[in-house]
Amino acid sequence: MTSLPSTPQDAAQDRTLPGVRPAVRAVPAYPFTPADVPIKLDQNENPYDFPAELKAEALRRMGERAWNRYPDLHADTLRERVAAYEGWEASGVVLTPGSNVLIKILTELAGIGQTVLTVEPTFSVYTLEASLLGARLVQLPLNEDFSMPVDALKAALSAHEPGVLYITQPHAPTGFVDSPEAVRELVDAARDWVIVVDEAYHEYSATDYRDLVRQHPNALSLRTFSKAWGLAGIRAGYALTSPALAENLQKLVSAFTMNTLTQCALEVALEQPAYVQERVREGVQERERVLAALRDHPTCEALPSQGNFFLLRVPDPQAAYQHLLSRGIVIRRQDSVPGLRGCLRVAIGSPAENDALIEAVQALR
Amino acid sequence: MTSLPSTPQDAAQDRTLPGVRPAVRAVPAYPFTPADVPIKLDQNENPYDFPAELKAEALRRMGERAWNRYPDLHADTLRERVAAYEGWEASGVVLTPGSNVLIKILTELAGIGQTVLTVEPTFSVYTLEASLLGARLVQLPLNEDFSMPVDALKAALSAHEPGVLYITQPHAPTGFVDSPEAVRELVDAARDWVIVVDEAYHEYSATDYRDLVRQHPNALSLRTFSKAWGLAGIRAGYALTSPALAENLQKLVSAFTMNTLTQCALEVALEQPAYVQERVREGVQERERVLAALRDHPTCEALPSQGNFFLLRVPDPQAAYQHLLSRGIVIRRQDSVPGLRGCLRVAIGSPAENDALIEAVQALR
Repeated sequence: MTSLPSTPQDAAQDRTLPGVRPAVRAVPAYPFTPADVPIKLDQNENPYDFPAELKAEALRRMGERAWNRYPDLHADTLRERVAAYEGWEASGVVLTPGSNVLIKILTELAGIGQTVLTVEPTFSVYTLEASLLGARLVQLPLNEDFSMPVDALKAALSAHEPGVLYITQPHAPTGFVDSPEAVRELVDAARDWVIVVDEAYHEYSATDYRDLVRQHPNALSLRTFSKAWGLAGIRAGYALTSPALAENLQKLVSAFTMNTLTQCALEVALEQPAYVQERVREGVQERERVLAALRDHPTCEALPSQGNFFLLRVPDPQAAYQHLLSRGIVIRRQDSVPGLRGCLRVAIGSPAENDALIEAVQALR
Repeated sequence: MTSLPSTPQDAAQDRTLPGVRPAVRAVPAYPFTPADVPIKLDQNENPYDFPAELKAEALRRMGERAWNRYPDLHADTLRERVAAYEGWEASGVVLTPGSNVLIKILTELAGIGQTVLTVEPTFSVYTLEASLLGARLVQLPLNEDFSMPVDALKAALSAHEPGVLYITQPHAPTGFVDSPEAVRELVDAARDWVIVVDEAYHEYSATDYRDLVRQHPNALSLRTFSKAWGLAGIRAGYALTSPALAENLQKLVSAFTMNTLTQCALEVALEQPAYVQERVREGVQERERVLAALRDHPTCEALPSQGNFFLLRVPDPQAAYQHLLSRGIVIRRQDSVPGLRGCLRVAIGSPAENDALIEAVQALR
């Protein structure tokens, strides 16, 4: 269930397939191959499973539901629960099976034949969906310190026909958090665009752009149950936005797509969310402990982060990757990503996993 | 959890939303509003839940899995199980959370900026996704007897730039089954197209186009766990196709999209699929019993069908709908669909539900 870099498939092999759009043929297959090792720090997951008593309650409810019946068209009960938790209008909540699906939907909403604007490096799904669906992709390099190039982005907002603007806070895969002023300046400049503030990791940075999003009917906050909530396996992400934008997003969300089982798990989680806070507290504490422990490393640089992960810049990424793997630790290589020379992305695990990581990195030269 | 016709939303209200593609704004919201009545014959569901002992086993496995970990990228274990069940290559199986998602993916694969060719009436998701994603939609009316207009479809295949061709067997919402010769003639004529043979209801018609699909690398059979398998609530559909087409479809399927809970349920179902055959047998028997019971009705015409549903043509659809609803039965109106004047779509329920339906329809004048 963990990752090794895989060779992109040869797109040429299927050039004979009639009907398939050239844009799809040209994109390589998603580069992810699982590695079966004990310490899995490659997908920015929560190291802890859903609490046992909540899991038991969720399973009990699943057992009572009829699996032969379609779920709600748009998971309305769950939307109301999410809305109550977030202090939002239910009509402005859009749920999908993972926020990856929302990124696809957003590309369908405002990217096809239009523009997708983001930075580089960025979350790969933004650019993948833009390429697959025929959006004009505009990517601007981050500044040296990983902050957003605000002036260049504003210029791009004016220079291109509107579409989707992605602002990731904290940023993935750097873990950088921009100033609220920089984010506000960009959002204000993007009045003709659909503005996505991707807050997948916001619990770990204690940042929160709900107030800003509320002021812009064309903006949305993208959130997930896969990170702080520790529910990556059940697939659920959501958008908080205006009712008008939500109504248009819902047209693109496949009908009945939030399955009954996942809905039961989320209902239980939203009734008893206290565990999330405790885990985030430990995750942040562990992140700072790992970063501190690696501060004086002679050859590796652990870069500061506000997420549940950090970048480790090493002299020889391939050797470092293999070294960690030989110690039963899998991380995610990022060294071929523009702007991330020599970087590995490492998730924060449990204290014992982090100890193993620290020890393994200490041995690196 | 059942349906009442709802008013399409006013698309004009959000005309001010910047960035949103006009095609999305123009489409009305999906017209489905649940009605809470005891006899639910509006969604072509299986009247029986997943068998209790299989449900218990699925829940047991779910409890053992880690919910904090992402599922397989493309549900490879499950793809292998489906492949073994269907006698297909695992590399030619594509799984999604419901076949609605596969229809979206197919529109992304070969519809955007290209052509979607289908008949009228047809399954609404084909035309909805075509409209939302910017495909040129070409629809040709079915013949009077609900058979496909083969010559007209062949002419359209030549007249338009390729894209996606949908062939639905048995057809929804009519339940009609075309001759194998007609289907083969169309598939042979569509060599430059991606050819979808939608077999969502094939268990009820005992038709099977796997052999034909195997001969055409650009063809696929679309199947679902929502009907004969009685698992609409857990969301799972799949395509059987060539490895080359499957590889391109997988690029468009969101990563990690088959959640862990659904995977557990499907693994159990595929290990003990015997229940499906028994239910299909009863479903077919009940369908024929209901059709026979309504044969001599003075004003209503129950049309023959090979699905787990049938069309009931009535003199006053609104009155008939309300009459059934007043007896605790919800069905799906189709009378505003071109070619289906006066028609309601009625699912086959349990014997007791069908008795109630027969009695209620007998009282209609």
